[in-house]
Amino acid sequence: MEYPQSFEELVECFKLLPGIGGKGAERMTYHILEMDSEQAQRFSQAILNIKKKIKYCKKCGHICENDLCDICQDSHRDHSTICVVENPKDVFAMEKLKEFQGVYHVLHGTMSIMDGKTIEDLNIQTLFDRLDDNIKEVIIATNPTREGETTALFLAKLLAKKNIPASRIANGLPIGSNLDYADELTLLKSLEGRKKI
Amino acid sequence: MEYPQSFEELVECFKLLPGIGGKGAERMTYHILEMDSEQAQRFSQAILNIKKKIKYCKKCGHICENDLCDICQDSHRDHSTICVVENPKDVFAMEKLKEFQGVYHVLHGTMSIMDGKTIEDLNIQTLFDRLDDNIKEVIIATNPTREGETTALFLAKLLAKKNIPASRIANGLPIGSNLDYADELTLLKSLEGRKKI
Repeated sequence: MEYPQSFEELVECFKLLPGIGGKGAERMTYHILEMDSEQAQRFSQAILNIKKKIKYCKKCGHICENDLCDICQDSHRDHSTICVVENPKDVFAMEKLKEFQGVYHVLHGTMSIMDGKTIEDLNIQTLFDRLDDNIKEVIIATNPTREGETTALFLAKLLAKKNIPASRIANGLPIGSNLDYADELTLLKSLEGRKKI
Repeated sequence: MEYPQSFEELVECFKLLPGIGGKGAERMTYHILEMDSEQAQRFSQAILNIKKKIKYCKKCGHICENDLCDICQDSHRDHSTICVVENPKDVFAMEKLKEFQGVYHVLHGTMSIMDGKTIEDLNIQTLFDRLDDNIKEVIIATNPTREGETTALFLAKLLAKKNIPASRIANGLPIGSNLDYADELTLLKSLEGRKKI
């Protein structure tokens, strides 16, 4: 026996979401079915709205509802220090710190052989358009993954050519972790990056 | 820093779904944001459609797009044997077996002290409307949980009053399980329900 067509269609839509398999999609579809109509309408509209209203900041590529994001518009921030991240969610992660006072640049991905993505597929031209003599530092904060590291290395070379001071966020043991559970590469990076105390 | 309003709204909607927390809802919202517009439109429409098109079968309460579900309309099925289940998903679970040839009745829940649900909150009146002299057996297949068992007992009493033959699906060890991992109640039920070999 098959699900009714409209039921199956919503199951298929939920299955497109990350981490949602067949069973999970069915559970969610039942949940929508049992929701009151007003709530379902709100959900449906929210999906349309996000596609309609969310834009990417023309300067840094972060998500926003205007031409420029709140951070790029904020004159109290240090516009001479740019932190380069992979995705908008990394901006939110950094902002939770309340430590970094500079601005951001969102690459929207990494170079990846697997996905056939080169440096040109990233939001990188707008970054170089921003680089003038006023820039004091570019902090490369791509993820410490194979793709993130490759992108960071490539970016560092491009920045060096333009004599822009660049830095890379530190690798090492996360706070609260154990030496004997750490992978070898992390431990090696932790040793290489040791500081005098 | 906060998410843009339309982003936050969709995150809140996803958080209403079962098993989805804050992080998961954010991931899904990013996914929708990166989807092509056509796909997002399809998703949004699928939510509206399911609320508009899915009805409950007037006879058995199963989900369908017409007045009666496919099973109730099927003259090849044994309409004298009714399997009573809690939810439409239980019908699909039973149908996967391809063993049961009777028809169903969906209660849409169970009696539950916690949720303040009594027998009257269930789809039970239509069940008794179906019970005539032609009914040979009612199989009570509510879940073997506290609420399911209570509902089954209650239902069995009501059926006994009307002299309708009723049965309850068996409890015991699931196939492939281990005795030493089984809970005491399951083991007890398994022992009580032993059969001659």
